[in-house]
Amino acid sequence: MPEQKPMTGLFLADGSLALREDLPHPERPGEVLVQVRKVGVCSTDLALARGYMGFQGVPGHEFVGVASNGPFAGQRVVGEINAACGQCDWCARDLGRHCPERTVLGILNRSGAFAERLSLPAENLHPVPPEIDDDTAVFLEPLAAAFEITEQVSLSSHRRALVAGDGRLGLLCAKVLALHGLDVVVAGHHPERAELLPKNATIEKDLLDGKPRGRPFDLAVEATGKPEVLAQLVPWVQPRGTIVLKTTAERPAPLDLAPVVVDEITLVGSRCGQFPPAIEAIRSGQVSVAGMVAARYPLSESPAAFQRASQGGLLKVLVDVST
Amino acid sequence: MPEQKPMTGLFLADGSLALREDLPHPERPGEVLVQVRKVGVCSTDLALARGYMGFQGVPGHEFVGVASNGPFAGQRVVGEINAACGQCDWCARDLGRHCPERTVLGILNRSGAFAERLSLPAENLHPVPPEIDDDTAVFLEPLAAAFEITEQVSLSSHRRALVAGDGRLGLLCAKVLALHGLDVVVAGHHPERAELLPKNATIEKDLLDGKPRGRPFDLAVEATGKPEVLAQLVPWVQPRGTIVLKTTAERPAPLDLAPVVVDEITLVGSRCGQFPPAIEAIRSGQVSVAGMVAARYPLSESPAAFQRASQGGLLKVLVDVST
Repeated sequence: MPEQKPMTGLFLADGSLALREDLPHPERPGEVLVQVRKVGVCSTDLALARGYMGFQGVPGHEFVGVASNGPFAGQRVVGEINAACGQCDWCARDLGRHCPERTVLGILNRSGAFAERLSLPAENLHPVPPEIDDDTAVFLEPLAAAFEITEQVSLSSHRRALVAGDGRLGLLCAKVLALHGLDVVVAGHHPERAELLPKNATIEKDLLDGKPRGRPFDLAVEATGKPEVLAQLVPWVQPRGTIVLKTTAERPAPLDLAPVVVDEITLVGSRCGQFPPAIEAIRSGQVSVAGMVAARYPLSESPAAFQRASQGGLLKVLVDVST
Repeated sequence: MPEQKPMTGLFLADGSLALREDLPHPERPGEVLVQVRKVGVCSTDLALARGYMGFQGVPGHEFVGVASNGPFAGQRVVGEINAACGQCDWCARDLGRHCPERTVLGILNRSGAFAERLSLPAENLHPVPPEIDDDTAVFLEPLAAAFEITEQVSLSSHRRALVAGDGRLGLLCAKVLALHGLDVVVAGHHPERAELLPKNATIEKDLLDGKPRGRPFDLAVEATGKPEVLAQLVPWVQPRGTIVLKTTAERPAPLDLAPVVVDEITLVGSRCGQFPPAIEAIRSGQVSVAGMVAARYPLSESPAAFQRASQGGLLKVLVDVST
């Protein structure tokens, strides 16, 4: 069986990324082996490379590949990244992404997608409909994370949303909120990216540097990864409004919570989401990620892909593993 | 009309509290004049005395008095402290406590209750049922703030609550949560105060200094006023759990929000509440505040009341204005 041979992939150890050709075969007993086709560089990957979570191994969790075995053998698949125990209360509540025993693809105790192969439980995998090409499929994981907001916050009771950050995740969040009928303003640095958004979403440059007139938003999403931005968002949000924290920052920031208490604002931590709503939104054309790939690298040049992505200001950097 | 004479009260200016006998008559046109009987010292009053909000004037917002005019003339009344415009969207939604034009009794642009008289709109006042004595009535305002949690959080979907702080507000929050069927653990310094709590609530000393086994709580309430406590609460709360921020701190504290995001915890800022649930809970005996008055002072000694309360470790310090 050729898959049992060592494989090539990107390996992170002690803050250093290097391509290696001797990585161990990743297959775990009872799981599905996936031949990776494409994988996206996520801000979390860049944070891991800077030392976040102390991760050592193959990073990468936004992927599309072909299942070698299991119920979707031979089909293109994407995968939910939290591999849960299947036995605990969290798993019973369909919240395996909070299972305390979980491993997380390319983030926690599980070899990731910047490699020729990866392993995931069959229940984590979703076949990719033929309408969705490989480039687009790589966005399903972060789009599912954007859809997670819809599971945690009643969007129908909100009207105007402010998204901080016009990077990859910020744009995906803006698309999901706009899809649910909210008027969306993205506070960003790239007003030209407004053409990637639906009509009820705009991008305003340097918005958060100014002072709000009134409290124009009842919902805000922090999607910059900068810990100081939360405090900037508070005065833009109405009393009793909601701020979704969509990114993890690597350092604590001083935060004055008094305005959050006085204005009874709710802060909602939000992480990974379920894939089906994201797959259906892309398949049906309700959400498009066209124009969001900024650069492509083969796996052999994946260290350069990380370097380029870490310079910032780019949309998605893709690594093509199958070429 | 004798009420139009100057009055005696406690006056805060430039960080200094002093009894004054020449304070202006507080009545505002169209409002109700209340002859104050008793008033409680709240942690917010102590914070104001240290400079919070930059308040200058008569502090005090936990009171019982007798209405001199208006629909409850001659009756004992308590009062909601936010005086709203009555015209805006917030007021239309029965959320005048978030009205941007509001004044707040003894906190923001409105003379407070540490004085012989105060003025509030009639719609802020609630008659005190005869079953509720004056001492108890003073607790209705902070108890309403504790009941505010029930308006913001679905308690029926939570089972085990951790309350940080066994001071006045912490105990009231514990009582409200216990009343709603939750098992409550109060992390405090005064285990003997457990006798003031219902059977499904306990006090554990130095709890937050230890490490949790598992994540035992799905709800936590921050009621210490210490900004560093929020970070201590996070590891005790289950993923997808809720932390209610019930106190305002006077200084920002560094906060690492990554665990809040990863565990998808919701932080809910919570302030004043509506009085009717609090009045009914006390009237019916569902909640008792017996044993919570720690010291009493006449108005003439109210600076000493503040000094004693600011030493900490005490339950409620009352000032008797009518003696």
